[in-house]
Order: sequence, then C-alpha cells, then structure tokens
Amino acid sequence: MDLSEIGEFGLIGRIREVAGSLQEGVLGIGDDCAVIPQKDGMDSLVTTDMLMEGVHFLREDISPYDLGWKSAAVNLSDIAAMGGTPQGTFLAFALPKGLDSSWTDSFMQGYRDVSAMSGTPLLGGDTTSSLDRICVCVTVLGQCPAGGAVLRSGAREGDLVCVTGPTGDSGAGLKVILDGVPRGEEEKILVGRHYRPVPRISEGRSLAAAGASSMMDISDGIGSDLRHILEASGKGAVVRTGALPLSDELKSVCSRRGWDAVALALDGGEDYELLFTIAPEREAALGVPHCVIGKITAEPGLVWEGEEGRRHDGYRHF
Amino acid sequence: MDLSEIGEFGLIGRIREVAGSLQEGVLGIGDDCAVIPQKDGMDSLVTTDMLMEGVHFLREDISPYDLGWKSAAVNLSDIAAMGGTPQGTFLAFALPKGLDSSWTDSFMQGYRDVSAMSGTPLLGGDTTSSLDRICVCVTVLGQCPAGGAVLRSGAREGDLVCVTGPTGDSGAGLKVILDGVPRGEEEKILVGRHYRPVPRISEGRSLAAAGASSMMDISDGIGSDLRHILEASGKGAVVRTGALPLSDELKSVCSRRGWDAVALALDGGEDYELLFTIAPEREAALGVPHCVIGKITAEPGLVWEGEEGRRHDGYRHF
Repeated sequence: MDLSEIGEFGLIGRIREVAGSLQEGVLGIGDDCAVIPQKDGMDSLVTTDMLMEGVHFLREDISPYDLGWKSAAVNLSDIAAMGGTPQGTFLAFALPKGLDSSWTDSFMQGYRDVSAMSGTPLLGGDTTSSLDRICVCVTVLGQCPAGGAVLRSGAREGDLVCVTGPTGDSGAGLKVILDGVPRGEEEKILVGRHYRPVPRISEGRSLAAAGASSMMDISDGIGSDLRHILEASGKGAVVRTGALPLSDELKSVCSRRGWDAVALALDGGEDYELLFTIAPEREAALGVPHCVIGKITAEPGLVWEGEEGRRHDGYRHF
Repeated sequence: MDLSEIGEFGLIGRIREVAGSLQEGVLGIGDDCAVIPQKDGMDSLVTTDMLMEGVHFLREDISPYDLGWKSAAVNLSDIAAMGGTPQGTFLAFALPKGLDSSWTDSFMQGYRDVSAMSGTPLLGGDTTSSLDRICVCVTVLGQCPAGGAVLRSGAREGDLVCVTGPTGDSGAGLKVILDGVPRGEEEKILVGRHYRPVPRISEGRSLAAAGASSMMDISDGIGSDLRHILEASGKGAVVRTGALPLSDELKSVCSRRGWDAVALALDGGEDYELLFTIAPEREAALGVPHCVIGKITAEPGLVWEGEEGRRHDGYRHF
C-alpha cells in the first residue's frame, strides 16, 4: 500500500504505535509541541518542522531571506501555540553544492531577524550537502511553567472560539504566487503574509496566562485545524463564517479577482495566527487583540453557520 | 562564491556570526550538543542531524530498518558524547509519495529498536512529502547534571587520549558497500557496524561521572574528530597509530583485500565510539572498556607516531 493510500494521518497513527511508552506528565505526538516536565517547576517544549524545496517552497520564487524567516517562524509559532517561551532554535539544512554562499548569508539574515523578535538564539544544527534540492529542518526548544502548556484537548462546552488575527491572507498570497498574478501593493502585502508570518509568542503567553482552554496555530487552514481541537477535546463547535477576520487587502484582491475570501480563510492555511478557546467570562480581560468566531458545543461535529455542507480538509501531504 | 569554496566549516563560521548572543551558561554551536541550563540543577542537551538520500545513504542499498536505526543512533550518540541521558527523540522526515507504507513500518521498527536500548521515547516530529528523495532529520533532547556536560574543550596537558571501541569497522563496511565487495560473514559484520552503530549512552554517562576531561563521538573519522578536541582545548596530542583498536574482522578483510586498516580507522568515520581524554590517575578506575591511543601535549598540533606526514581530513560536505 503506498503512502497516498494510508494518508498523512494514517502514517502518523502508525508512527504513534511504535513511539514507546511515556513517563507520567510527558506529552508526545499530537499537539503543536511535545511537553517534557523538568524538575524545577518548568516544562520543556520541543517542536520540529521540515521544509522541502518543490513541496513547501519554490526556489525561484521565495527569496532566501524569506525562506530563512519562514523556517524559523513556523517553528517559533508552535511554541507560541502552547503559550511557551522559546529558549533556542536548531537549524539543520541540506544545500546543493553549487549554491552561492550569498544565498545562505541572506537565508541566515531572515532566520535571525524573525528569531530576534522574540530574542531567541540559534544554538545548534547541522549543515550538509544535497544532490539538488534545498531541505530545511528547524527545531525549537522552549519552556513554560509546569502544567501551563495550553493543549489542543482543553476546550469546554460554552467556550468561545477565537483567533488572534486575519485569516486567509497567507492562502491568498500563495494563490498570487502560484497563479502568477501581477503584484500591486495589496498583492505584495498578501505575499508578504505568506512568506513572513509573525509568530505570536507574546500573545500566546498572554493567552495562556489569561486561561485559554485550548490553543493551536493555524497552519493547515482554520477549518482543518479547528477539527484537531474538537477531536482532541471530544467536543463540537458552531462557527460563523461571517465572523472570520478578513483583512482589507484580502477582501479587495478577492473582489477584484473573483476569489472566495471565506474559502481562502478556511482552507488556505499558513496564517500562523493563534486559534484558541476561552470561557466567555474570561474573554473581556484578555488584553490580546482577537476575534470571536464561534462557540464550543457538547456534541461533536463542526457546524459552519452560513456555509452548510462545505468540506474543509486542509492541505493533505499524501 | 559557491559553497564548495567556503567549505562546511566556513559555512558554519558564517552561521555562528548571526547566531545571536547567548545567556550565561548556554553553550551554542560547536560541540556535539547545545547545552541549555534549566533551573533545577540539570542542563538540557539538544542535538540534530540530517540524513539525505544520495548523500548519506543509497535507498537501494540500506534497508529501511537500518536507516531507521542509524537515524536515531547517530543523534543518541551525540547525547552520549556529552555524558548525557536522552529524554526523547523527534523525527522529521520527507518521503516520496509513491513509497510503500511497509517501508515506513520497517524504518520505524529500526528507529524504535535502537531507541529502546536506552529507553528513549519518540515524542514528536513532522511527516511531509518530497518530490523524489527521502530526507530524515532527527533531534534528541537530553539532560545531564548542571555543569556536568563533557565538552570538547576540556582536554588538559598530560591527559590520556582514549577510545571506547574499535575504529575503522564502519568505514570498511562502507567500502564493502560502495565497491560492491561480495559479503562473507566478516564483510557482513563490517556492513552491520556501518548501518547499525550502537550509541554509547551508558558508557558516556560513566565516563562523565569518572571525570573524562573532554569527549566527542567519532563521526567524521578519528583523525579529524581529535583535531576538534585539540582546537577547542587549545592543546596538541601525540597519538600512536599502532594503538588504534582494530577489530579482527577489519584486520582480516583488510589483509585479504589489500586495504589499509589504519587509514580506515583514521579517516573512515561513523564508528560512533566515544573519543575522550582523561587524567592518567583516573584511568584505572574508569570501569568502561577503552583503549589508550595517545597523550595530550601543551603545544598545539597533532603528531601521529608511525604515520609521519599523513593528512587526515575527514569527510568534507562542500
């Protein structure tokens, strides 16, 4: 059976089976980060993500600066999604032998600039050659107070479903790139959102402190990502598509091009905003800009008010 | 300037420049692992390594089981080289879409079997598709008592230079593979040493407890690896090539084929035995099988007694 038949989640399921038994308090595969309790009242957080040329990016389109930025950003975002603080990043990359060294200089500049936003040092990694394509794998070590990591599994009935910022910009930016759309100011902003997502580190920490009950970052698309929270929590949700936060640039470009802004917000993915749930009585005191898009229900299932019957599966790797 | 002109270590040097400033006690790029002090009297250790198809392995030759084994082993070995205890591994891999799912099942089995030797659970990772080649990146989180990590920089004048086990087997195994040598029992053992190195976790911990002054694992080749210790420590060494531990299988195959066993021991690499230094008065109480191959000197430089004038550069990626 080839991998496209068992699918990415089938593969992850098989991997979980051989992962080995875990000590009490350790959280393994299945959330934005693993959580490993240390002895000092802090938990360690670890996340890793791999970016492959030809799959996650095209060398001729993304600048090395942007690739460096994004490689670090998507991993720092996973730490943010647990409410954690990053302690250091680890960069492994494979580079074709003929690549110019100015490429790596520029890559490292982007990597550093986004890391500097949260004061996170590069602490190690691996440099190796590849036959032809670039491959980047970043790991981030972070920490949070013991038991303080905000998991996907904590959503409770009646909680509000919220998101920290605009959805769909990154997906629209990718569509601009793939469709070869001429880039005016607005298109450039959307492409920038695709290439230079900002990890919501301080927001994540504030949301954890304010009592967010579940949290994750938007990587596959809010439609698919919210399902992860619901499955992990054993709950359902009613979400109003009309409440999804859409930027002016997204609305403007979509209306000009006849694109479906809501579909991009739901399925586009890679916004790296934080999707979280919180009890209604705690919402007023949040202190983090956010948008309420729905409510958690006791009965499982995700109901989109305003878009009955649509499917939102997110990106499938296999 | 392309990467082959600046070289792997030139590239690492450029990366170090942008790594950012480190907090006191944090050890970044330049050893087998990064060391991050936590608050509880323990230090966290992190290491990451990337294996690329066509560069580090050939799919038609290595079995998925062996690749899974080796991917975990080489990283666990880096934790061993600091004298640490692994807490969990993180596996990121990119797989071509047409790959059969039995391949990943077998890969995971090998990965698990070597991880189980030290009781290390798989705690997370990333699964993604690639256009054609397999890429594996493993990260390991470990820990050791605060300040207890054995660095490359601690060798002192008069210390003995030691190694925990046979050198050259892995290099000879690789030569058997690359040259298409028919595989009798002995050749199979050498190939096995190449594909299934055993991380010296308990040995590393014992050596740290016994006061090893510097340590690293043999990955590039003992000739090149020892230079890293000498450079980091600002010391030199006199090493007797005749003292290098050579297995019976290595000697037998080399004598039959006219291969230079000492050259394989020096340059072959990937033995994943531990190379360490220790004060002579502590050696008797070590309690870990080892072989003394030389002595640390005050004046920088590496002198090979018995092989004047040879160069041993280890494997160069660019």
